[in-house]
Amino acid sequence: MNVEFINPFLVSLINVISTMATIELTPGKPQLKNHDIAKGDVSGLMGMISPKTRGSLSITFEQSLILEIMNNMLGEKPESINEDITDLVGEITNMVTGGAKNLLSEKGYDFDMATPAVVSGKNHTISHKARGKKIMMPFSHKHGNVFIEICFEDV
Amino acid sequence: MNVEFINPFLVSLINVISTMATIELTPGKPQLKNHDIAKGDVSGLMGMISPKTRGSLSITFEQSLILEIMNNMLGEKPESINEDITDLVGEITNMVTGGAKNLLSEKGYDFDMATPAVVSGKNHTISHKARGKKIMMPFSHKHGNVFIEICFEDV
Repeated sequence: MNVEFINPFLVSLINVISTMATIELTPGKPQLKNHDIAKGDVSGLMGMISPKTRGSLSITFEQSLILEIMNNMLGEKPESINEDITDLVGEITNMVTGGAKNLLSEKGYDFDMATPAVVSGKNHTISHKARGKKIMMPFSHKHGNVFIEICFEDV
Repeated sequence: MNVEFINPFLVSLINVISTMATIELTPGKPQLKNHDIAKGDVSGLMGMISPKTRGSLSITFEQSLILEIMNNMLGEKPESINEDITDLVGEITNMVTGGAKNLLSEKGYDFDMATPAVVSGKNHTISHKARGKKIMMPFSHKHGNVFIEICFEDV
């Protein structure tokens, strides 16, 4: 898994959040994930399959940031994570994966997306179990952090 | 989504847990999931794609039950959910989905599996965001409960 493959996900998240909520995320350095774990409060997960690889992606938000995104989009800020927020995280997960899929398709990498599932629970963690390297991409904002993690294995 | 499609997942979970851990789960009645939510402590998630549908599956365990499964398999019982447990839940998710895939293939339904991601976090919930009916299958055991949820949408 190389930078050419990682960057489209990074670019896509920044674009989606900027476009939807006029919030500009600051990307940190993508890193191989070993034992450090991204914790958060609500996560979108997506399975991906291509003829040669398969894998999973997660986008994990801290509550304070996703509530601010909702506030910027709709002018209303729930007190905690409710069904409107999990719907929003599912939609963001679809849009980020779809955006990366389009960017990668232009480079000759094609994959199919499954459908998103959204986890909510204070301080949960996610372990991707594909037999391949796990890449974590951190993003920061004054209202909180968000992490993308992806992992692929050869079929 | 009909019984013919649901039963292979139900049968597969019962078989996998019985074979791996000699624990006999008692299946409850599969139900359309509306607003009642399956809560648990560790979940395996899997994306699935076929030419005509795509969706997601989750298997959510209460901590007490997954620790007992580990104990029956390996004779050791961690005090809480650790990486051995999330590896086990990932493997169970692979085996249950793979078993259902084989049973469904015999009936002419073929799908591809992504790779599992495992969520750990006390009392987390999962919302499947495919645009289709959500089915929940509860299973009980004296050591705790486990739930399968699946959701598919037409492509």
